Amino acid sequence: MGRTNHQYRLAARPVGLPTPADWEYVAEPVAEPGDGELVVKVRYLSLDPAMRGWMNEGKSYIRPVGIGEVMRAGGVGQVIASRNPRFAVGDYVSGTLNVQEYCLSDGTGLTTVDPALPLPVYLSVLGMPGMTAYFGLLDIGRPEPGQTVVVSGAAGAVGSVVGQIAKIKGCRVVGIAGGEQKCRLVTERFGFDACIDYKSQDVRTALRETAPDGVDVYFDNVGGEVLDAALARLARGARVVICGAISQYNATDQVRGPANYMSLLINRASMTGMVVFDYADRYPEATTELAEWMSAGKLRSLEDIVDGGVRAFPDTLLRLFKGENTGKLVLKVADE
Amino acid sequence: MGRTNHQYRLAARPVGLPTPADWEYVAEPVAEPGDGELVVKVRYLSLDPAMRGWMNEGKSYIRPVGIGEVMRAGGVGQVIASRNPRFAVGDYVSGTLNVQEYCLSDGTGLTTVDPALPLPVYLSVLGMPGMTAYFGLLDIGRPEPGQTVVVSGAAGAVGSVVGQIAKIKGCRVVGIAGGEQKCRLVTERFGFDACIDYKSQDVRTALRETAPDGVDVYFDNVGGEVLDAALARLARGARVVICGAISQYNATDQVRGPANYMSLLINRASMTGMVVFDYADRYPEATTELAEWMSAGKLRSLEDIVDGGVRAFPDTLLRLFKGENTGKLVLKVADE
Repeated sequence: MGRTNHQYRLAARPVGLPTPADWEYVAEPVAEPGDGELVVKVRYLSLDPAMRGWMNEGKSYIRPVGIGEVMRAGGVGQVIASRNPRFAVGDYVSGTLNVQEYCLSDGTGLTTVDPALPLPVYLSVLGMPGMTAYFGLLDIGRPEPGQTVVVSGAAGAVGSVVGQIAKIKGCRVVGIAGGEQKCRLVTERFGFDACIDYKSQDVRTALRETAPDGVDVYFDNVGGEVLDAALARLARGARVVICGAISQYNATDQVRGPANYMSLLINRASMTGMVVFDYADRYPEATTELAEWMSAGKLRSLEDIVDGGVRAFPDTLLRLFKGENTGKLVLKVADE
Repeated sequence: MGRTNHQYRLAARPVGLPTPADWEYVAEPVAEPGDGELVVKVRYLSLDPAMRGWMNEGKSYIRPVGIGEVMRAGGVGQVIASRNPRFAVGDYVSGTLNVQEYCLSDGTGLTTVDPALPLPVYLSVLGMPGMTAYFGLLDIGRPEPGQTVVVSGAAGAVGSVVGQIAKIKGCRVVGIAGGEQKCRLVTERFGFDACIDYKSQDVRTALRETAPDGVDVYFDNVGGEVLDAALARLARGARVVICGAISQYNATDQVRGPANYMSLLINRASMTGMVVFDYADRYPEATTELAEWMSAGKLRSLEDIVDGGVRAFPDTLLRLFKGENTGKLVLKVADE
């Protein structure tokens, strides 16, 4: 096709925050699809806190990205060549497209999507963050109407959806986010009952005021001190959902374990880890319900789109760990 | 009755390990029972790690012992005077008798027991430790035949019963205990498949060898580094039962939180706290089954009885936190 594919490969395993030396920027010709294969022109890439974990060696819930491999990323794009009967040229697809401009794929894990909706929505509410919020809250958190749900990372891709679903389910919802601007977004745009600014407030004290009956469900995206503050305010029988720990992903010394974990005993509470991929066979059920809530105006999505092309990937990723994004962080790779 | 009751009252809230200054030794006349009351002569007192928590101020699963109050303790004894129709003079009873020689009670929480069994058994396998092991393992740990169950404090009152029940249920059982002698007891007397000596072995490495397929159920009595080592070796879908954290009860700086808690996410595992009192209405069911296992020779009890009288309570309690007891630590208060 004579096209050139730019991509980022993992050059080294980072210590702490990823640096430019951890990446290799490569240009190579776009290959012609073989039998059963297709080529997707990447339009948008999803930037996720979990990416940091994929860059580490060692056992995790998913194979680490190998040194020299293209960095793993979810994305949405358009089919420009296909020898796979499931996909036609012109189709829009979402799936693991990786940090590059063109993705040669055998179709595994790719799903066609309806371009009537803005494509970035397939990386936020109707993508992994939405699935994570839906199953993490409803399957593991199991909130009941009238209960108090607290969510950290409340202005982020997952947290904002968790809180909105909890509101739909009749709960009192308190967010935790960094900065006045994010907190205003959380209450005004996403409709949470309250939002605690962990940068200017003592979270434990603020929870005493905003969740006076204790925390029935705590959905944790951040770990660290915020997790400890939430543990200190659990209600009897509370469920803590461990979805992420963004405050700890770049720790160069030991991870800060939750010193207040004995609150689980005092309150007969549980703390459970969740990985969204386990729910893959139920994504359609979640997608249907989330899309219905969106079209009914009960659920709002917010994407923070950086129009920088693949070249901007390393810098854009760092925004996640500096708490600079609001809503789902998306990298725009190509206009069309 | 002209008898004198010696008792220990809480004089101060300890910082770190309790010291003599935290106790007041008091002698007072034994009161005559009023209408509905009875007097129990205490024979044996139960010494439990949880006692340390009862001495602290602040929210817990049970009201703290107040300054100036008799120290709370479970015990077994004999009724010597009664104006309560449920109890006759000569009956043996177990319940909260507190750290004293005679207990004046309205009968609340007291149960008559059969003196055909040695009385200390009602403080171990057929008492709180047995109930804790039974419900913690079976209700929260939910082991399946062939799965691997790991128990810390394996030579202790709860841990030794947890492991034996897990063996009865067809599991592979690995204990963790301190010292060669305790480890030998755990494998030889209690029939565990293996026992790791945390004092001489690296627990994480030893778990790789003794639990090669990972840990399906981890029953934690100790917290600290041992909890972290077990978290590092969880199997997919593992259940961690938080029953106690004896390594942390006397910490004067902050409790050491489990740095490896993100293993809950990687392994889709859960960590759940349990308080035995929640199962009070099911004690009879557990007692029946535990007694059957005992009489069938499948379940062995071991009491570490200190014949020191009430006077020896403060020193004897410290043995728990120094890891000096083997099996259920019991203080003998009176011969008969």
